[in-house]
Amino acid sequence: MTADSRTTVGLLHPGDMGSAVGATLLAGGARVLWASEGRSAATRARAREVGLEDADTLEAVARASRVILSVVPPHGAAELARAVAALGFRGLYVDANAVAPSTAREIGRVVAATGARFVDGGIIGPATRTKRGVTRVYLSGPNAMEVAPLFGAGPLEAVVLDAPPGAASALKMAYAGWNKGSQALLAAIRAFAIAESVDAALLAEWKVSRPDLPASSERAIHDNAKKAWRFVGEMEEIARALTAVGLPPAFHEAAREIFARLSDYKDTTTSPTVEEAARRLRSRGPSRAP
Amino acid sequence: MTADSRTTVGLLHPGDMGSAVGATLLAGGARVLWASEGRSAATRARAREVGLEDADTLEAVARASRVILSVVPPHGAAELARAVAALGFRGLYVDANAVAPSTAREIGRVVAATGARFVDGGIIGPATRTKRGVTRVYLSGPNAMEVAPLFGAGPLEAVVLDAPPGAASALKMAYAGWNKGSQALLAAIRAFAIAESVDAALLAEWKVSRPDLPASSERAIHDNAKKAWRFVGEMEEIARALTAVGLPPAFHEAAREIFARLSDYKDTTTSPTVEEAARRLRSRGPSRAP
Repeated sequence: MTADSRTTVGLLHPGDMGSAVGATLLAGGARVLWASEGRSAATRARAREVGLEDADTLEAVARASRVILSVVPPHGAAELARAVAALGFRGLYVDANAVAPSTAREIGRVVAATGARFVDGGIIGPATRTKRGVTRVYLSGPNAMEVAPLFGAGPLEAVVLDAPPGAASALKMAYAGWNKGSQALLAAIRAFAIAESVDAALLAEWKVSRPDLPASSERAIHDNAKKAWRFVGEMEEIARALTAVGLPPAFHEAAREIFARLSDYKDTTTSPTVEEAARRLRSRGPSRAP
Repeated sequence: MTADSRTTVGLLHPGDMGSAVGATLLAGGARVLWASEGRSAATRARAREVGLEDADTLEAVARASRVILSVVPPHGAAELARAVAALGFRGLYVDANAVAPSTAREIGRVVAATGARFVDGGIIGPATRTKRGVTRVYLSGPNAMEVAPLFGAGPLEAVVLDAPPGAASALKMAYAGWNKGSQALLAAIRAFAIAESVDAALLAEWKVSRPDLPASSERAIHDNAKKAWRFVGEMEEIARALTAVGLPPAFHEAAREIFARLSDYKDTTTSPTVEEAARRLRSRGPSRAP
């Protein structure tokens, strides 16, 4: 493969999931740029580790890239699209974030306004940099088939949905709506049982009738506490998505509240015990946005 | 066992779960009365089938019983306790309903005011009339040990919690809070995926990464549609219970809404398809109380 035949892809930004995307794009033969300006030391280290090319600024990335892939926390997705559009980007813009279909379509309009084409994306699975087959990047919209070949090798597989922009985001909302919504509910139930001093009785009953739940309720707290700050915006997007089709948003408004109350565990080194997290979950103060 | 040594228990009322309780009490050697006045033909048939003794009126039951067991939909629990107290009942009153700990304690005060003693109860498991070991009646409060021997044989086992009144109800709220709350969430997620035309993609993704979910999301709709009307009050009690300890009530406010929107399937002969239920779940009109 010559240098000319390689597609140049701008990856914004190589966070945890972003680096998994970056590793995949490199394995598939793309040249992958990122913009280190204003990024954290952890992000710089990850980008170096994966082998991405530092173009320094967003402007340089937008100028040099044929495809831009947006992989950011959901509350930053629209803002990043506006920033890229403001730089006059006219390539293919892929929003791979956990946003409501309406947010995805709005992002599509933003980037189309300055001449870029849009692909809606949604990533389902863990941020793996190694094993192929556990994480899928769903793509939808008329330009989706152009993006799929970039994921031909490496950890993440692409799945093209024969559906308009918004479908890949809807699928992500549905998947995460159960996955993270049910984990937030399970955390709340343990916190309730602890508050009412019936936690031991609940675990004993579960051991008989629902033997999976003692361990999965522990994981719902241990595995999520340090990442909870990132889920706040995602729960807001899911609530918005359900409202848009006439379904109750309150499951994910509650899940948002649960993750917001755990958001102080960001940057802590160890996960809290179930009992410690339960105390935090019962805080009555106003919840903090990420 | 002579007629004199048998404990006379009033069972209010032999609905689906009530008949399972009645079958257990009879197997344990109690004399079991019920009050047919104002009850449906289905309830009369069940009571006959199980072999309960018809005392006709609530008044006759209250006069003749040493123990009264209340097994009603949660929204009727406090009202029944007031009716029994108004009849001057001075025996042992067991509230076995799916109510918040605060509701259980309020019922305890109501019956204590006219001289009865109180036991808090909560039933976890299906309404089985045959197999022992799948359904447990949790009991709490200082008089709980007196009630347990009534469940010595038959389908339902008693478990005494060494805890004050409210604990058995709290355990029931925690258990049903996950069980029914998560089923309502799963039903909402399927309805969302159908509304957004990504249901086939969601099922395909689940088959790979969460192979239990296609079938359990179908069951969440099929198994609950006809009983949904009964769950509305229970979700309200769970929301109240979570609020009382500073946890978000919104999971179960949403679950309440889901079950309320399915409540028209009461008395239907067949369960709706997932697609039909999904349309019903998206109704935007005001929900109906049971």
